[in-house]
Amino acid sequence: MKKEFNRRITLTEKEMPTAWYNIQADIEDLPQYLHPETLQPICEADLAPIFPPEIIKQELSKERYIEIPEAVQDIYHTYRPSPLHRAYGLERVLDTPAKIYYKYEGGNATGSHKLNSAVPQVYYNKIAGIKRLTTETGAGQWGAALSMACDHFGIESMVYMTKNSFVNKPGRRTFMSAFGGNVVASPSQLTKAGRDVLAKDPECGGSLGIAISEAVEDALSRQDTNYALGSVLNHVAMHQTIIGLETQKQFEKIDEYPDVVIACVGGGSNFAGLTFPYMRDKLAGKANPRIIAVESTAAPSLTKGVYAYDFTDVGHMCPVAKMYTMGASFMPKGTHAGGLRYHGMNPIISKLYHDKMIEAVAYDQYDTLSAGLLFSRAEGIVPAPESTHAVKGAIVEALKAKEEGVAKTIVFCLSGHGYFEMYAYDALLKGQLGDSSTDEQSVAIDALPKV
Amino acid sequence: MKKEFNRRITLTEKEMPTAWYNIQADIEDLPQYLHPETLQPICEADLAPIFPPEIIKQELSKERYIEIPEAVQDIYHTYRPSPLHRAYGLERVLDTPAKIYYKYEGGNATGSHKLNSAVPQVYYNKIAGIKRLTTETGAGQWGAALSMACDHFGIESMVYMTKNSFVNKPGRRTFMSAFGGNVVASPSQLTKAGRDVLAKDPECGGSLGIAISEAVEDALSRQDTNYALGSVLNHVAMHQTIIGLETQKQFEKIDEYPDVVIACVGGGSNFAGLTFPYMRDKLAGKANPRIIAVESTAAPSLTKGVYAYDFTDVGHMCPVAKMYTMGASFMPKGTHAGGLRYHGMNPIISKLYHDKMIEAVAYDQYDTLSAGLLFSRAEGIVPAPESTHAVKGAIVEALKAKEEGVAKTIVFCLSGHGYFEMYAYDALLKGQLGDSSTDEQSVAIDALPKV
Repeated sequence: MKKEFNRRITLTEKEMPTAWYNIQADIEDLPQYLHPETLQPICEADLAPIFPPEIIKQELSKERYIEIPEAVQDIYHTYRPSPLHRAYGLERVLDTPAKIYYKYEGGNATGSHKLNSAVPQVYYNKIAGIKRLTTETGAGQWGAALSMACDHFGIESMVYMTKNSFVNKPGRRTFMSAFGGNVVASPSQLTKAGRDVLAKDPECGGSLGIAISEAVEDALSRQDTNYALGSVLNHVAMHQTIIGLETQKQFEKIDEYPDVVIACVGGGSNFAGLTFPYMRDKLAGKANPRIIAVESTAAPSLTKGVYAYDFTDVGHMCPVAKMYTMGASFMPKGTHAGGLRYHGMNPIISKLYHDKMIEAVAYDQYDTLSAGLLFSRAEGIVPAPESTHAVKGAIVEALKAKEEGVAKTIVFCLSGHGYFEMYAYDALLKGQLGDSSTDEQSVAIDALPKV
Repeated sequence: MKKEFNRRITLTEKEMPTAWYNIQADIEDLPQYLHPETLQPICEADLAPIFPPEIIKQELSKERYIEIPEAVQDIYHTYRPSPLHRAYGLERVLDTPAKIYYKYEGGNATGSHKLNSAVPQVYYNKIAGIKRLTTETGAGQWGAALSMACDHFGIESMVYMTKNSFVNKPGRRTFMSAFGGNVVASPSQLTKAGRDVLAKDPECGGSLGIAISEAVEDALSRQDTNYALGSVLNHVAMHQTIIGLETQKQFEKIDEYPDVVIACVGGGSNFAGLTFPYMRDKLAGKANPRIIAVESTAAPSLTKGVYAYDFTDVGHMCPVAKMYTMGASFMPKGTHAGGLRYHGMNPIISKLYHDKMIEAVAYDQYDTLSAGLLFSRAEGIVPAPESTHAVKGAIVEALKAKEEGVAKTIVFCLSGHGYFEMYAYDALLKGQLGDSSTDEQSVAIDALPKV
């Protein structure tokens, strides 16, 4: 057997990119956000009650590159640059001529890419004088990342965690507590939104929609408190571009350029993170990689939703965005990929998909967790349920390459590990996985705002 | 603030050492193993029923360096070389002039250093034609590592997992199943040893001693089956020296040499792994670092045991060794550091401690988990309960350096992460940690073999 080196292509801290890529600079005619009450284009002032000035600026900015503050780089250095792995083991199992690479974002304490945006968000709030941040968390990765970043910068954190997760994921909950985070099961008695739900249904297991409403209500009620979001919005997507910018440098080192770029999508943050720098090359005509978004059949906004203006939150407190959506009141079935259950999609990804610059595909959790199991055994890393969607996408493309006899180069984002989600694999191994696919009639687009 | 680079000192795969260091070459008068029945020195044939030829050779070898087989190097490359981290965050929190470094072994799928020995052990069994391996596991790290290595080489694995862990750690159990491992709660109905215990106490929660007996009995009963041990023996310690050999190369890169080298000890494998290459320098008179073993007060064999010949297993089926021991029938109290509850100690570490080449200290789980929590918040990695002992040792030394106003260089082994053991931190945060310290009267050295 030929000796296989370069299993992990690494960068030194000094080689880490020092600016994020803001794709808004390269996209024309991006639909504006609308105010959820007036349905008129929003201005910076509309966002000021919950976001700090720099985040608002970034959300609406047209500058191509935005420098990463030194204090943020400093924390990035504790876990970045992250490695780009060559998946020799997976290639062997699939017996494919394709070269498969994955960018692994699970190497930090929170176990996912979420920290990439939590750190700058907390930093910008800190320098704006904010003392306290609220957020929601479903799967728990975002809450963990925000707690950790808040702990670092000395800001209080308040995480509304969907009650089902709160009960079933004690490990994630303890993690947040260990980093000084306040965690409460949502719906809670702390907000009107929570109390209203509990009055109707004291046993309610919670939903991301309710948790967002609680977190935003909390932030609006206190002068010293802002709100932080872990996906969907443009500034979050931009912070994540550090993933793709590093990946490009790593491929340069081995003189390769991928033919296919793949990531899973829920709200869109890790997908944007890996693919936007490649989209930059594609928009500039420098390269033409296929870019594939893999969503869950539980919330297939790209493949089954509509492209329309919709509310980004259930409580209608956040901006209205033109995006692919299942409808803001859409209730996805239960799935182990809690991070892929969002009803909408980042507006830029939505536009790029509408413009046919991106492909999309949806897989059921049985298929993705099976792919995750295959990957685990071949590569020795257990992927988070969300990340198994990207794994599945890569396997499908690698097998296609085999069928065609073409030695394609495929890269995907392994956005996080699954140590806290082993019960999902347990359900798979025991044949107890439920069908999480959405049926047509549950799409809830009859309540779209009349724009 | 000065920009802090070199937080992670890395090596390329090509820089990974290609031979293990066998400290037996440099130690004279190492007491021989004795046969558990005859109490006469054992020969290779005595070990043949449960170990393959190459492992037996390594266990008794006097060669200074033993080459790492290519097939083993190949798997090492999937997660090695592991990074050496500079603990800037911890230094800042402690306000110490000491430079603190840690070698992080939690970056592979099994989450600890155990894979370093599981891979070669399975490999040598594979080339010896063995089809099936048995082992015991308490905390779960070793069982996970063995399952994964067996899966890679296509060998069946059978893990006897102490029943309490089996029930309380479903994540670890699923992990082993995901890698094709057979896991059974011990005591089980599958062996005479297990049935005997269950006949007396059907509710027995199991112990490492019982699980070892079951695994060895199983291996002895089948021609195609061997047994694998995760610590204590010399070949295991030697496989782990890849940790210290890499660390030395990493320090060379930044032109440093540590003054203090620290690791936690249970059976001794991660301790041997980090420190034996430094002991080599010390024995050769090339350097004189302090080498500190940190044990749990639950099983403080070095600080409270005796140096004597004792059985290495409860069932008296394995070799008798001269070592520091609490007595083979010693029952430690419950503690969250399941990997540090062994009654004895690797014989070489024991001799070196007896010869005053090593220092030892024991800490209670409250102190160590508190240190682990401090470390988590400062460094962004949550240590395994076992590893928090090394963290505590390093903090004590760093604070001593501060008191003395000396800029010492300290390195310790962060042997694994604690994602599967968050309940230990939960107990700490809730003030529910029990006292795990051993009282004098529980030392069980009245049953030592009469040598």
